[in-house]
Amino acid sequence: MRPSGRAADSLRAVSFSTGFARHAEGSVLIRMGQTEVLCTASVEGRVPPFLRNQGLGWVTAEYGMLPRATHKRGEREAARGKQSGRTQEIQRLIGRSLRAVVDRKAMGEMTITLDCDVLNADGGTRCAAITGAYVALSLAFRHLVAKRVIAAVPLIGQVAAVSCGLVNGEALLDLDYAEDSAAEADGNFVLTADGGIVEIQATAEQKPFTETDCLTLMTLAKAGTRELFVAQNIAIEAAGSIV
Amino acid sequence: MRPSGRAADSLRAVSFSTGFARHAEGSVLIRMGQTEVLCTASVEGRVPPFLRNQGLGWVTAEYGMLPRATHKRGEREAARGKQSGRTQEIQRLIGRSLRAVVDRKAMGEMTITLDCDVLNADGGTRCAAITGAYVALSLAFRHLVAKRVIAAVPLIGQVAAVSCGLVNGEALLDLDYAEDSAAEADGNFVLTADGGIVEIQATAEQKPFTETDCLTLMTLAKAGTRELFVAQNIAIEAAGSIV
Amino acid sequence: MRPSGRAADSLRAVSFSTGFARHAEGSVLIRMGQTEVLCTASVEGRVPPFLRNQGLGWVTAEYGMLPRATHKRGEREAARGKQSGRTQEIQRLIGRSLRAVVDRKAMGEMTITLDCDVLNADGGTRCAAITGAYVALSLAFRHLVAKRVIAAVPLIGQVAAVSCGLVNGEALLDLDYAEDSAAEADGNFVLTADGGIVEIQATAEQKPFTETDCLTLMTLAKAGTRELFVAQNIAIEAAGSIV
Amino acid sequence: MRPSGRAADSLRAVSFSTGFARHAEGSVLIRMGQTEVLCTASVEGRVPPFLRNQGLGWVTAEYGMLPRATHKRGEREAARGKQSGRTQEIQRLIGRSLRAVVDRKAMGEMTITLDCDVLNADGGTRCAAITGAYVALSLAFRHLVAKRVIAAVPLIGQVAAVSCGLVNGEALLDLDYAEDSAAEADGNFVLTADGGIVEIQATAEQKPFTETDCLTLMTLAKAGTRELFVAQNIAIEAAGSIV
Amino acid sequence: MRPSGRAADSLRAVSFSTGFARHAEGSVLIRMGQTEVLCTASVEGRVPPFLRNQGLGWVTAEYGMLPRATHKRGEREAARGKQSGRTQEIQRLIGRSLRAVVDRKAMGEMTITLDCDVLNADGGTRCAAITGAYVALSLAFRHLVAKRVIAAVPLIGQVAAVSCGLVNGEALLDLDYAEDSAAEADGNFVLTADGGIVEIQATAEQKPFTETDCLTLMTLAKAGTRELFVAQNIAIEAAGSIV
Amino acid sequence: MRPSGRAADSLRAVSFSTGFARHAEGSVLIRMGQTEVLCTASVEGRVPPFLRNQGLGWVTAEYGMLPRATHKRGEREAARGKQSGRTQEIQRLIGRSLRAVVDRKAMGEMTITLDCDVLNADGGTRCAAITGAYVALSLAFRHLVAKRVIAAVPLIGQVAAVSCGLVNGEALLDLDYAEDSAAEADGNFVLTADGGIVEIQATAEQKPFTETDCLTLMTLAKAGTRELFVAQNIAIEAAGSIV
Repeated sequence: MRPSGRAADSLRAVSFSTGFARHAEGSVLIRMGQTEVLCTASVEGRVPPFLRNQGLGWVTAEYGMLPRATHKRGEREAARGKQSGRTQEIQRLIGRSLRAVVDRKAMGEMTITLDCDVLNADGGTRCAAITGAYVALSLAFRHLVAKRVIAAVPLIGQVAAVSCGLVNGEALLDLDYAEDSAAEADGNFVLTADGGIVEIQATAEQKPFTETDCLTLMTLAKAGTRELFVAQNIAIEAAGSIV
Repeated sequence: MRPSGRAADSLRAVSFSTGFARHAEGSVLIRMGQTEVLCTASVEGRVPPFLRNQGLGWVTAEYGMLPRATHKRGEREAARGKQSGRTQEIQRLIGRSLRAVVDRKAMGEMTITLDCDVLNADGGTRCAAITGAYVALSLAFRHLVAKRVIAAVPLIGQVAAVSCGLVNGEALLDLDYAEDSAAEADGNFVLTADGGIVEIQATAEQKPFTETDCLTLMTLAKAGTRELFVAQNIAIEAAGSIV
Repeated sequence: MRPSGRAADSLRAVSFSTGFARHAEGSVLIRMGQTEVLCTASVEGRVPPFLRNQGLGWVTAEYGMLPRATHKRGEREAARGKQSGRTQEIQRLIGRSLRAVVDRKAMGEMTITLDCDVLNADGGTRCAAITGAYVALSLAFRHLVAKRVIAAVPLIGQVAAVSCGLVNGEALLDLDYAEDSAAEADGNFVLTADGGIVEIQATAEQKPFTETDCLTLMTLAKAGTRELFVAQNIAIEAAGSIV
Repeated sequence: MRPSGRAADSLRAVSFSTGFARHAEGSVLIRMGQTEVLCTASVEGRVPPFLRNQGLGWVTAEYGMLPRATHKRGEREAARGKQSGRTQEIQRLIGRSLRAVVDRKAMGEMTITLDCDVLNADGGTRCAAITGAYVALSLAFRHLVAKRVIAAVPLIGQVAAVSCGLVNGEALLDLDYAEDSAAEADGNFVLTADGGIVEIQATAEQKPFTETDCLTLMTLAKAGTRELFVAQNIAIEAAGSIV
Repeated sequence: MRPSGRAADSLRAVSFSTGFARHAEGSVLIRMGQTEVLCTASVEGRVPPFLRNQGLGWVTAEYGMLPRATHKRGEREAARGKQSGRTQEIQRLIGRSLRAVVDRKAMGEMTITLDCDVLNADGGTRCAAITGAYVALSLAFRHLVAKRVIAAVPLIGQVAAVSCGLVNGEALLDLDYAEDSAAEADGNFVLTADGGIVEIQATAEQKPFTETDCLTLMTLAKAGTRELFVAQNIAIEAAGSIV
Repeated sequence: MRPSGRAADSLRAVSFSTGFARHAEGSVLIRMGQTEVLCTASVEGRVPPFLRNQGLGWVTAEYGMLPRATHKRGEREAARGKQSGRTQEIQRLIGRSLRAVVDRKAMGEMTITLDCDVLNADGGTRCAAITGAYVALSLAFRHLVAKRVIAAVPLIGQVAAVSCGLVNGEALLDLDYAEDSAAEADGNFVLTADGGIVEIQATAEQKPFTETDCLTLMTLAKAGTRELFVAQNIAIEAAGSIV
């Protein structure tokens, strides 16, 4: 029995509050259980130096956690003067994951920055950030289409992410903090709606795991993201009809 | 006529969502019009080195703005590696303002850090932060009383803040961003419920102002904070009965 | 009785040694009692990026304190790798105060940086810095007129600053360190020679103060700055006749 | 045909020069083709604060690349003042990988830091670092046993890593730089000698890949690391007989 | 003919204003021609961690240059966030030079920090800093003797420094900025009153120089420092009689 | 008798492994006894801003020490976020030393960066770095001549460096770590093959030394560098015939 009472293959309750950040071209507050991440997409009409004059756009991400998103207050990275290795690792993952579904040529020379800020943390923040960032990015692209900056939404796939892990020998979908802390192994699976894998990061936390374990977790993740893809689409359509 | 249609002496709509940050000892999301600041109070059972063994508590504050809280995305301070002068100035002001109403001896040797993070900015963020931080701090103290860490809430006053300014020669209460940008002069008034002044910061933005102007703004601020004191108390009482 | 034997409304002895920094376009070592601040104005023929091609000049300030300007040696900010919040707050104040009396259009596209470095500290360093910076800036402008870089001195007002405070219930002008440490409340008043207010920063150090207190301090400040305006003018004229 | 003429399932030539760093408790210069990484294990008789008095040891890693290990000179991280996100991500991976095979209780309260510095880079530096770090760590533990600091080598497994990728649709083992740059997808596989998985990081570089692709890469990786485990053991035994 | 009209073996006018920093245990404003350096000695009753419980004192130095001490305003190191290589090199030299004449055992476990801040620069600032720091340190030691903290002044030598250089083929003593910029080679000589060498740093600026050149510069430096030793002693004695 | 059994005027065994860094335009691993420094020369087709459009090239250096090059592991400067004063001092010295033998006009507008990274340290690392950097720089210039980027090698001299010191009253050539730690005085001598002096840095470590001591050390250094010049030339010629 999971602490939350969920079945092994159950996601937490997922919801999307689009338009949470009033000034952003696209934004959503994603909630997965008690994890809440505010994702905003900001458009800027130029690309970083290494991409200039190549006719390609750029999609990048930054990640942060409010100091008291966690049980114990964490040091504010801005006050400490640098981002932790964990933060940098996560924001690099988010950026790669979103770029995997964007046609950067069709997008043209612009930069979209996805800021993913965790307001409340209860495990799975990086996966929630990716799932939310896809929604924010989609909304920003729709906004640009509506403003006739681009002709069509330059997305070539739909991406979402979920964590799975082995806890007391059982494979569980969408770990919350209590489960994550106790996991023998866990993985973050970034998948596309057409069944592709964008990224797998699976780690033995307590002891090495097997290929079979890995496949079991993958199966859970596929089922979990199928639900997320539906929820993302509903959120995007609902937002679209309002704006 | 103000852009928002408000009268010169009208506050924007104010609301408090207490308990927004699930892990904090006290928290509130304060909204003043379209400005939204998440204020959390975090308790730690020790004081900074300069206060050790003096029997006094410490109350301090940190302030941040999410990159896309504003019209144009701002650089993330954690990525840039340092807090701006503006950020530091504001967090010092919040800390001083709250310490002015705390009996640090009664509080005992503990530190409470007030994190004020702006989720959406439309002017007046530092004042909203102070007004919200008072609520978060009160809730944290009540929590500590309920847990019998302290015998009574060690508050010796109630504090709130509001900005006022001269726009096109007219004195206005609670400036939003459009007004703030156009103000000839403006001030932030940190006041207590019993009529005391904790801090005044009044600045000529376009040209020097007069003592009379200053008194007019002060009068507006007093009226404005009277409403805020009532709203704070309602929020605290409502939260108290739930927890 | 004040520790220095001064009357409640007496300034400390003020003097200006102009030309102290040989290379600067304008410079002065201001002494207010035992507080000594070296103020230099440095001219550079371009403006920061955010002002380019707008036909406006820029006046900015930096503030520092030599490590042993104080009773106890302070850490060198350059060695520590960052400026404190206090330093940044002060240099922002100095910059705003001077910009308030400059016609930035008449000045043309150039930057003047006012460096205010405290050689000896005995309270009131930020006010002395503002008062001295006005002299350094005036001398730099006169230098530019003499060199025919600009046609006339682009000053539209005269600015000086002084601190006042409540100590043991009494309102005192121009606090020295001993008084400042014991003050119940104090304020820094940045005023112009024609009676305008550029900035007021009044803070309750021990307990909230009243509007009446505030007005009393303001009255002292007005009288104090009247003397400073005269002293500034004498220093500027004397320097002018030499160069 | 691979640029190097290797078969799809061939490792590059691997060699280990143990004792390269004269002062370290364990060290090796690992060469995988033209990739060269100097791995040193440094023992310190205490643990970081978060582990004190728990009877557990700590194994951690730092990674660096000499500025001209690459085709184009890279900026020196020490001069730039911070480690890149990539560097931090890699050193966290190395640390986790080695901790997975250490009995930290048997090790006792000490810290071993594995410094992995790339002298020449031709792809696969993080995997070479892990494979080399295992050798350096083993030698350090043997050294501590010889000096009777610990009773036995506290290793509970043997770890090595290799990268595999899809290049032009073909699954290849141990990518060099030319192959890595052209890969559609690639992964780093950190495996143990008894068939366990410590970490998988598989990423779509150009387009999402399938579960089948992932299994094919895993199979290659298992075969590749089997060879590495043998080579590690030979190097350790050879070194052991000398020291 | 030198720009200043001095003979090749003439020092610039030297003067010492002791007690310039009111709070420091020892201080002097040294002037060598138009170079002015404020040197303060600050006493702290403990030593850095690496020296604890060894019965030895520590003497160290920090060096800075006010932004407009030079012809062109230099960036403020505190604002830039780090000290330049030049600054660090100079402060390390000052520290070594002073430690060479201190009996650190007789001094006992305390730290004296010599802050040398250049108010006006016209060449030779590091040498002036050393010469002035010796005076400030002597005054601080006398102060400690007067306060009965130590029994006797723990100085075992007297140190001063001067620069010499080859300009247009001629060996010159005590280069000013104009000469320093044009020198083919120059050196800084840190010497003791009893004829010892503490440090020589001689550098070819335009082309390698000879051993003979080096000896010629050394001879000039010896003569120059002989005058400085006398001037130092007069300043110390004069100050001593006042305090 | 020296710990190594060497005569007072004997260098340690010197060797040069050219081409150690495969990607660099010039590189060498220099060994002086157990000190090993990897020197690489990297060519970039532009100069720093302060040199633009002057028709002059730039030669600069960076220095680093691997964390476990030393007896005790040192903190990684990249992790610490800044280079130490010692590192900066050394890299400035290396840069000056090499620039002294380069015809920067003949070189044209390009930058060559010499990275000197210490793999194993046993005293004399800065001297080994200079001696090795000369070889790396020569090879890079030959490479540029071979590629017809420049017409001829723009070297106007040959430079090498060696340390000498007084240990137990005896003057010794080429100190190793044990001797360096025990030296009463030591110096680094950067000399040219035609008998010129590029830089002398001689420091009293325990007590001031005499002019005679200085000359004795210089004589040793001249003899020592004569051997180094021969070894450099052999290494360069041998490398040249291969490439």
